[in-house]
Amino acid sequence: MTIERTPRIEFWYEFASSYSYLSVMRVEALAAAAGVEVAWRPFLLGPVFMSLGWNDSPFNIYPPKGRYMWRDLERLCSRYGLILTRPSTFPRNGLLAARIACRNHAEPWIGAFSRAVMCANFAEDRDIGDRAVIAELLLGLGLPAEDLLADAGSDAGKAALRSQTERATELGIFGAPSFIVDGELFWGNDRLEDALAWAHDAA
Amino acid sequence: MTIERTPRIEFWYEFASSYSYLSVMRVEALAAAAGVEVAWRPFLLGPVFMSLGWNDSPFNIYPPKGRYMWRDLERLCSRYGLILTRPSTFPRNGLLAARIACRNHAEPWIGAFSRAVMCANFAEDRDIGDRAVIAELLLGLGLPAEDLLADAGSDAGKAALRSQTERATELGIFGAPSFIVDGELFWGNDRLEDALAWAHDAA
Repeated sequence: MTIERTPRIEFWYEFASSYSYLSVMRVEALAAAAGVEVAWRPFLLGPVFMSLGWNDSPFNIYPPKGRYMWRDLERLCSRYGLILTRPSTFPRNGLLAARIACRNHAEPWIGAFSRAVMCANFAEDRDIGDRAVIAELLLGLGLPAEDLLADAGSDAGKAALRSQTERATELGIFGAPSFIVDGELFWGNDRLEDALAWAHDAA
Repeated sequence: MTIERTPRIEFWYEFASSYSYLSVMRVEALAAAAGVEVAWRPFLLGPVFMSLGWNDSPFNIYPPKGRYMWRDLERLCSRYGLILTRPSTFPRNGLLAARIACRNHAEPWIGAFSRAVMCANFAEDRDIGDRAVIAELLLGLGLPAEDLLADAGSDAGKAALRSQTERATELGIFGAPSFIVDGELFWGNDRLEDALAWAHDAA
């Protein structure tokens, strides 16, 4: 007799990250179709990059990588049917959105909220670091914006994201999106399908 | 009336590069199946990395990226049915092999030679920077090893690779493997299939 486990992936993402945009928009539908559970793991890339010696996005530090990324993102958005409006500020500050997502990662609206923030950043060029923008997105989802914002800004809200970001570094994560399946790390939006297949085979 | 062009990709690779190993082993068969011509473009990553401020492979400079790459490479080699023996020195010196490949990029044996060098490095852990190793590989392909080695070491042989590597930087290439199709840059072994599809659609 074998013990059946529900296939599951940990999905590590950052709201400021361009390739995370692609995976946030795709993961819920693909995982559902594959019968895989998603554990949403918002975190901050900033401290991870600092530990690698980068004080900015590598796409800004290394201009050829940045030029490539924006063109690549255009091609991929076109393939996936996603809107892309290059953010007038990059990277934007994903701190507030990540604190909310971190505190509510198991709520049924985590996918919808994450997609709304990503669309605001990468499809509508809105400042997701602005509390009023996040409040509007929450209200649009029928959620108690003020309560959620207050909780995100509480000591517990701050500590939750800090500890999750430390955990990312401990797990060997060095970029976003990343997927962890059964101890295996997969990095990059292009590996979402691989991670789902691995979860399926491992279960 | 439309003018039909033969679909074509430029395949930029470096013999020391781990992900280039995967593409060198795969490109000829996949391109033939897709009806796409391959223009082989060996170059050196060292000068490209230097221009980005790196004096070593980023996989050595950033240990989490390096640990990830070796595990990822294992998984991919397993998927593609390729042997992987982690080279005892990484990155190896691909200069001599690249000079030979650069001077003979349009010869019918360019694919076989490139695969032989890659297998020596990544499947057999041999020192591809060693002239005797390269001579043996050339002889194994029935090629005039001494003539080819002498030509690679000539002023013209040195200049050809230097100019090709400068061209890589001009084209915005920042890593290997890279593919250029109709002015579009694709980076990484995972994009080989995308590049072939783009070549097909563009032609």
